[in-house]
Amino acid sequence: MKLARCSDSGAPFWAVVNAEARTVTPIVGSFADWGPALTRAIAAGQGGAAHSVLTPRGDARPLDSVRLLPPIEPVNRVVVAGANYAKHLADDFGLKSPPQPIAFLKAYGALIGANDPIRYPPLTNELDHEVELVVIVGDVPVDPEDPLASVLGYAVGNDVSARDLQRSGPAGIGMDLFAAKSQDRSTGVGPWIVTRDELPEGSPKLRLTLKVNGETRQDGNTGEMTWNVAQLVKFVEERSSFAPGDILFTGSPAGVGQGTGRFLNPGDVVEAGIEGIGTITNVVGPKPGV
Amino acid sequence: MKLARCSDSGAPFWAVVNAEARTVTPIVGSFADWGPALTRAIAAGQGGAAHSVLTPRGDARPLDSVRLLPPIEPVNRVVVAGANYAKHLADDFGLKSPPQPIAFLKAYGALIGANDPIRYPPLTNELDHEVELVVIVGDVPVDPEDPLASVLGYAVGNDVSARDLQRSGPAGIGMDLFAAKSQDRSTGVGPWIVTRDELPEGSPKLRLTLKVNGETRQDGNTGEMTWNVAQLVKFVEERSSFAPGDILFTGSPAGVGQGTGRFLNPGDVVEAGIEGIGTITNVVGPKPGV
Repeated sequence: MKLARCSDSGAPFWAVVNAEARTVTPIVGSFADWGPALTRAIAAGQGGAAHSVLTPRGDARPLDSVRLLPPIEPVNRVVVAGANYAKHLADDFGLKSPPQPIAFLKAYGALIGANDPIRYPPLTNELDHEVELVVIVGDVPVDPEDPLASVLGYAVGNDVSARDLQRSGPAGIGMDLFAAKSQDRSTGVGPWIVTRDELPEGSPKLRLTLKVNGETRQDGNTGEMTWNVAQLVKFVEERSSFAPGDILFTGSPAGVGQGTGRFLNPGDVVEAGIEGIGTITNVVGPKPGV
Repeated sequence: MKLARCSDSGAPFWAVVNAEARTVTPIVGSFADWGPALTRAIAAGQGGAAHSVLTPRGDARPLDSVRLLPPIEPVNRVVVAGANYAKHLADDFGLKSPPQPIAFLKAYGALIGANDPIRYPPLTNELDHEVELVVIVGDVPVDPEDPLASVLGYAVGNDVSARDLQRSGPAGIGMDLFAAKSQDRSTGVGPWIVTRDELPEGSPKLRLTLKVNGETRQDGNTGEMTWNVAQLVKFVEERSSFAPGDILFTGSPAGVGQGTGRFLNPGDVVEAGIEGIGTITNVVGPKPGV
């Protein structure tokens, strides 16, 4: 099942997506109303019973008639786990894999939907891309013995990063991940949530790619993660609890501009895709003052 | 004027506080309904006209009959600026003041109210205190020429930090500020918002102290900040925009356990106070599994 958060002329709403027919059917309520029950049904192997959890509201409408929003409500938080692909760390930052993951928070206002423009932030000259698997936490508390039971599904993310600002953090404290990764309207997430029961069991092993103007820049597999989804969800939960509807970025494979020197430019068409989930396509906006 | 977010048996509500009479008078609406208008009235020197912006809802009730919540709604974000008192950096961390501030996000779930217990997080053995001036942003966008015009007022914060986890961040990336500072139910904020017109004009120069079991551990003045409130608000806004109701911690003066080796223990009574604003008193809870 695919679930999208959408808007048309009115308030945002959630909908079930039929990707083949290219329609969305709105459903009643906010994530808190159906997310936990749906996640529990899927964990119990009853994903097919989803229609007893979700209440349609009106008829199906064309997918192209709505704007796809990030599949997260403003009350939820965005957690980002980094340093999770060894080759990315080595090639792009010259760093070894650490003994444990690192997590931080991204501002909600940094998010954009599947087809929204990427705002080019005014302070940077090194705007970079990072395709990532995004985990949607649906039910809590996380069971440390079975963290995946709390996962509703997955989406595609592009953790757009301002590298020069990332390096501007104070010596002895570290990278400025806030300035680098919480820039307004820069980070694509979407196009929708694919529920976990649509993918093979266990932590996902899916090809993820990022193209700029049709040229492949990142080509990895989520199976290469140093810490898999279950381990990351447990790691974050032990430090700061998830709420239903929170999302977790899981790190990016090698090939970003930080390593190659090829950063994003105004007008670039950036396609981030994960097999079995979908693709988000965001165009980089104009550079302020240019 | 003092504004508190309260709860009794029902949903949380905002209220005007009469600290002398020790009463609270509930008001209608969420922060978004009155916060921007009140902030603009204060910026225009019309703080006395607040009663035209706020709508009372029912009679005054005893302050002691409500629980004081953190003065921020769950949809808002908590930004923390660090490295803002040179002596704290030098004495407690052995670091020099950096050329610019550093900011990061704290999870909403880390917050507690003025009299709530501090949860002792399970992964740490070095739980520490940090008294801080907390800025409440009331109106946006922030004018870079006059950032204080966006500030509704101030509260007291205790940015409780797990120092051993702070050091667990990966080499080359930096401190793990998420693990250190987003632990569930640990960070006191309150007791209320004191609106800016109750304090002298400009960036506040107020004594701030922190006591543990009656013994003073931190004793500083917000006038010692390396970057004042106006500069910090502008710094954050340039990187990631504020929304009305967001709050900003502004760094802590010297005297924390990181420098002295004297960390918080279960049962400790922790009082964080700022002159002209108030005091929050939080007791450290039991250590898990002990």
